[in-house]
Amino acid sequence: MTGADALIQTAVAAGIDVCFANPGTTEIPLVQAIDNSHEMRAVLGLFEGVCTGAADGYARMSDKTALTLLHLGPGFANGIAYLHDARRARSSVINLIGEHATWHIPADPPLHSDIESLAAPVSHWVRRNKGAEFLASDMADAATAAQIFPGRTASLILPNDYLLAETTAKYELPSRVAPPSVDHSAILQAAKLLRENQPSALFLGGYALRARGLRAAARIAAVTNCELICESFPTRLERGAGLPTLKRLPYFPEAGRKLLAPFGAIVLVGARNPVTFFGYPDSPSYFISPEQKNSVLATPEEDIATALEALADELGAPANVGNFAELIRPEIPQGQLTPEKFTAVVSALQPEGAIIMEEGISSVAHYFVQSGGAPQHSYLSQSGGAIGLGLPCATGAAIACPDRPVITLQSDGAAMYTLQSLWTQAREGLNVTTLICNNRRYQILEIELKRAGIKEAGKKARTMIDLDKPEINFVQLSQGLGVPAVRVNTAEALAAELQKALHEDGPHLIEMML
Amino acid sequence: MTGADALIQTAVAAGIDVCFANPGTTEIPLVQAIDNSHEMRAVLGLFEGVCTGAADGYARMSDKTALTLLHLGPGFANGIAYLHDARRARSSVINLIGEHATWHIPADPPLHSDIESLAAPVSHWVRRNKGAEFLASDMADAATAAQIFPGRTASLILPNDYLLAETTAKYELPSRVAPPSVDHSAILQAAKLLRENQPSALFLGGYALRARGLRAAARIAAVTNCELICESFPTRLERGAGLPTLKRLPYFPEAGRKLLAPFGAIVLVGARNPVTFFGYPDSPSYFISPEQKNSVLATPEEDIATALEALADELGAPANVGNFAELIRPEIPQGQLTPEKFTAVVSALQPEGAIIMEEGISSVAHYFVQSGGAPQHSYLSQSGGAIGLGLPCATGAAIACPDRPVITLQSDGAAMYTLQSLWTQAREGLNVTTLICNNRRYQILEIELKRAGIKEAGKKARTMIDLDKPEINFVQLSQGLGVPAVRVNTAEALAAELQKALHEDGPHLIEMML
Repeated sequence: MTGADALIQTAVAAGIDVCFANPGTTEIPLVQAIDNSHEMRAVLGLFEGVCTGAADGYARMSDKTALTLLHLGPGFANGIAYLHDARRARSSVINLIGEHATWHIPADPPLHSDIESLAAPVSHWVRRNKGAEFLASDMADAATAAQIFPGRTASLILPNDYLLAETTAKYELPSRVAPPSVDHSAILQAAKLLRENQPSALFLGGYALRARGLRAAARIAAVTNCELICESFPTRLERGAGLPTLKRLPYFPEAGRKLLAPFGAIVLVGARNPVTFFGYPDSPSYFISPEQKNSVLATPEEDIATALEALADELGAPANVGNFAELIRPEIPQGQLTPEKFTAVVSALQPEGAIIMEEGISSVAHYFVQSGGAPQHSYLSQSGGAIGLGLPCATGAAIACPDRPVITLQSDGAAMYTLQSLWTQAREGLNVTTLICNNRRYQILEIELKRAGIKEAGKKARTMIDLDKPEINFVQLSQGLGVPAVRVNTAEALAAELQKALHEDGPHLIEMML
Repeated sequence: MTGADALIQTAVAAGIDVCFANPGTTEIPLVQAIDNSHEMRAVLGLFEGVCTGAADGYARMSDKTALTLLHLGPGFANGIAYLHDARRARSSVINLIGEHATWHIPADPPLHSDIESLAAPVSHWVRRNKGAEFLASDMADAATAAQIFPGRTASLILPNDYLLAETTAKYELPSRVAPPSVDHSAILQAAKLLRENQPSALFLGGYALRARGLRAAARIAAVTNCELICESFPTRLERGAGLPTLKRLPYFPEAGRKLLAPFGAIVLVGARNPVTFFGYPDSPSYFISPEQKNSVLATPEEDIATALEALADELGAPANVGNFAELIRPEIPQGQLTPEKFTAVVSALQPEGAIIMEEGISSVAHYFVQSGGAPQHSYLSQSGGAIGLGLPCATGAAIACPDRPVITLQSDGAAMYTLQSLWTQAREGLNVTTLICNNRRYQILEIELKRAGIKEAGKKARTMIDLDKPEINFVQLSQGLGVPAVRVNTAEALAAELQKALHEDGPHLIEMML
């Protein structure tokens, strides 16, 4: 058995059985070890960002640990952006990063670089393997690190000579650690704040946005009349008919502060104290003002659902409450597509159990409200802000949940970062429907220029905003990557094509001219 | 004047007038400053790797400093791979990396990360700006650092609040420093080695591969009968009819050592002691054996051309020698395309002054020899090994040399890393012809598996090697990005399409089924 075999066998023993891979020469022993393994599945990405973004999506939807296989420093670097997102999403991801043979590194070969320095900013845990006999234990330690609730990113740097060397060393996996319980004082404090400060709100994130946490939150709302508000960019929010309704914190500081302003107290549950995405002049970093009382019921890494249930009990909430969303869908609109009509069509047609990956940037403002009464679905968004997560994250989500349809609401500019994901969707026959919002510009930059007081962007500024010269044809791009595609201009055409795509197996792309 | 204006004005004063940009919200002040500048040109990339790869190509062909404009840590991370290549190529590149407003960073907003840790492995010089009043001097220092001969990578981290703040601070640019001269003892030692050890070789890299250095090397060869050999992956090699002929060090260790084995002495000129790309078991790191004598005439950062001329004079070489390549082109072959026929067609048709960007990986083995007698051309290759450099590097080369045709010899797998480059080529109307070697696999992995003793890749290993399910259609992809494209299967069709592409303005793509 090679060191690489020992590593892959340990990964399988830790419950890890999908590897999003883009290997090179130094990773050949791992390619061979995956080939030798019955359990490990390899999913090829044509670009490393596809692998890391898919790992994030897979981890979010499977609640398992995703593996990536990347080629040395530069290959890893191509995956950093979506590991940044995965770290912010608290997804459980382990990166297997190939490294030159140890004896070759002093010669500083062309592809050599400081992998630790690249890995540190996006990894909770980084280790360089020191020999074949440690590959099993290093993998086990990486799994332990990555499986700290709700999930962490771990990076393992793997010299080629150690991967190739024979070893018999195995390693007993420690049992998985449950998330720490919340101290009872936090429950009492939250109860006090909610009782004594009206109106109040629960600000929910992370695992608070799964069904169990949401049901407990609804119990709390039923007795305290508190508002339920979720993070601007939830990692995974379970929602739709039969689940509690909540509001989402708006992206821009003014709107966000306006939503939160009425509340005398805000209790944070599985969410950080919310921070504006960017720092704007004369606008503070935090949404919650210093005059507002707040407390932390549970951090994102504590046992959030149990804490919410304990708080509901403490408040004397009944076990069953009725304040859940009803099945109400918008009508399918007619005529020339607009952003609002596009999201109305999706809200009207998305099937039960759909996974919605949203990276629509400026084109999806209305979706969240329109889809609140759609059948139950999982809603994923871009937790870390690294543009281009939509397509790969949807790809990984579809690998995790082959029986659920995935719909990606995708802006055109962001789609162009990791369009290669479509090829992996075709290769794996994934049920993903990608809806491209083609508005032929980085509209968010246009908005931000206006916010910065620039009424009309100059000619050269426009060359950095407009995407219309040449126009990108997403139908051709999609077909070139093996995914059937169609372009639509009207709401009725979108409705017809979306229904068709959802009824046919395999991936589809619909380009919407907005 | 904002700090951003001061920075851009200083860049222009340092002779920097092209910025490869993919800005975001934090970089809005720089977008505005570029808009305010008459001299600075902005070239938009749809992905940051396009920007950094183009910066590398631009620097190589203009001998000027290229600017990139990137969005925070994750945006910068997407550009790291080709900054790795630029660092290895010793290209002069300055990265302007946006950063959150200083007062916002303690709140750890979603896009915050440790930019210094990401930048260090690919930057000779990194600085975080400390205030608007230092933006001019920071830019000047970055230019000084990036312009150390032959070129370095510098990264400047730019907090948004300082970019926005008003400043009057200017900065006098220091005059550019000439590369250090070679010590006369190095010339004497090289002369002695070449005279006393027959046969001998000059191993040439970096600026030794420009016309002036090559002509001096030919004079040395004329009197010592030494072989002229260049690095496996030259940054920029001037070659073709009327220039000295040289051999190239093969990629694989066995072939490389076989080429070098006969030489009793090898003199390194502007090149590092050559190292194998990867470390293979039972194969040393260095190509030159410990039994072979070697000396360094000039390091890559010294005044290489002057050193070569001094060595030629020391050896009493005549001023004019005749050992230059003659104009000899292969016949245009007929029939089903093969890698050898494809490169014969290119060698037969490439025009005078062409810039050849080669990232053909396993499909271009014959090109170097076949094109040795083509009209004078510049040959660029992938100095750092980060896959996908071909298309963006060609894009930057075309921006640097609008009057010269650029031909990219591009493997299919590597093309898929940064295909977005085609859109920038269309947007800027660049005269680039991209030849895609579509062999529907990562052939280099197949070769490396065989080298590792695995006769037949297993089923799962093949899922990480084959690119045929689904087949990638580069014609559709290219058209989708605004570049006219055609697919060819025969040598005569390639010849016809290549001639057509070279005669029409703007970019073209030819997909070759190999």
